[in-house]
Amino acid sequence: MKKKIKKVNAAILIIGNEILSGRTQDKNIAFLSKWLNSKCGISVKEVRIIPDIKKTIVENILFLSKKFKYVFTTGGIGPTHDDITAQSISKAFKVKYEYHNEAYKILEKYYGKIKFNDGRKKMAKMPKGSKLIYNPSSAAPGFVIKNVFCLPGVPSILNSMIENCKRYLVKGSKVYSKTINLYTVESNISKQLGLIQKKYKKYVDIGSYPFFRLGKIGVAIVTRSSTVSKLKNVNRDLMKLVKIKKIQVLKI
Amino acid sequence: MKKKIKKVNAAILIIGNEILSGRTQDKNIAFLSKWLNSKCGISVKEVRIIPDIKKTIVENILFLSKKFKYVFTTGGIGPTHDDITAQSISKAFKVKYEYHNEAYKILEKYYGKIKFNDGRKKMAKMPKGSKLIYNPSSAAPGFVIKNVFCLPGVPSILNSMIENCKRYLVKGSKVYSKTINLYTVESNISKQLGLIQKKYKKYVDIGSYPFFRLGKIGVAIVTRSSTVSKLKNVNRDLMKLVKIKKIQVLKI
Repeated sequence: MKKKIKKVNAAILIIGNEILSGRTQDKNIAFLSKWLNSKCGISVKEVRIIPDIKKTIVENILFLSKKFKYVFTTGGIGPTHDDITAQSISKAFKVKYEYHNEAYKILEKYYGKIKFNDGRKKMAKMPKGSKLIYNPSSAAPGFVIKNVFCLPGVPSILNSMIENCKRYLVKGSKVYSKTINLYTVESNISKQLGLIQKKYKKYVDIGSYPFFRLGKIGVAIVTRSSTVSKLKNVNRDLMKLVKIKKIQVLKI
Repeated sequence: MKKKIKKVNAAILIIGNEILSGRTQDKNIAFLSKWLNSKCGISVKEVRIIPDIKKTIVENILFLSKKFKYVFTTGGIGPTHDDITAQSISKAFKVKYEYHNEAYKILEKYYGKIKFNDGRKKMAKMPKGSKLIYNPSSAAPGFVIKNVFCLPGVPSILNSMIENCKRYLVKGSKVYSKTINLYTVESNISKQLGLIQKKYKKYVDIGSYPFFRLGKIGVAIVTRSSTVSKLKNVNRDLMKLVKIKKIQVLKI
């Protein structure tokens, strides 16, 4: 019996001038992609990085939330003037931007009534109807509205919250992958690799990525598929090619 | 006499499944953004990461090249089947995808006639009318067609080529920036920071970014402007705030 493959996709929207200007090196894209893929069988199909501009956020939220099953945003949910993700998403979905009762209580308890100032209160405001993504490291929760998941920009905080997204996600079929690292150059195998990709077009994606390691040039061949048997077949063909070409394998 | 501010913007389009899947940590975005900003006065206003799919590349090239003064692509110009940037851009701009004479000669000379196989020849194919971006590290050139600059995905090669883009770029006014690192939390200063941003709205962008350093929590206040005097004014206001709040400054 054939296993039915369930494909679930997502987009990531990084909101923040500091990433666009190159001041901050983004770490959330790779983390989110890997987590979604390995833990939920969800493939990230597009990433966008945009500035802290309300109109731009609104446009991108509307476009991406329509095109993909899920959208994950990072950044812009803190207490300062440049944190405008929650307002912008409220505007995009035409819902009120208001205090979330539970979020308000969580933050009030965390800071204590006296230290719970306006900036901190702002972190309890979100689009009406949002569900919370609990934050075990610094209290201020993220939120889910429709198919959009809003997470903070600080990687350590985002990482600590990610497991709390799971309850809201429909999982897809796991995508399996295998990497063969070869001591060769791409142009030595590009023709045959193209033919193998053609043969398995429907089931397997083959990627080819040059690398430099210990002063030697190599190519990493990455195969990805939802079907283990197809992945085995394509890798058997790849190993035949390696043998014919007498290529040294670094690591499988 | 007022200096006329010339704003020039750009978008970056990262093409590659390996970045989307999280397998490879992107390093080109931060590098390109910083280089464009510091060397050419060009501000990156949007970044997209997309898969190696022709239709997706075509759509994004058409959209971004229309919206921004320049577009920089990375990835997909190597010899393998998944390198389809040049074909896709030819399709987007409805021009022939063909051998570039000079690129062909450069590559033939680099590899020698015997080793110049089909995979390597593929790297000389590009949209008709392209101008070359010379590659001092591995010969295969990038190219410019209309306002789109196509660079390779391997960071070390991209970095070595970037200066060769300059001749094709119109420069913008330099954007100056200043960072003040404070030992405080965002919510302690968010209200006043918002007021200062409002006051200088037209001339200065103020960003606020939490950090953790040596076990202490802090906030980096980043101000950016094309006008040095405005930047000085806003930073004078910020230092007043720091004094009133008795905040320790880590480094200016």
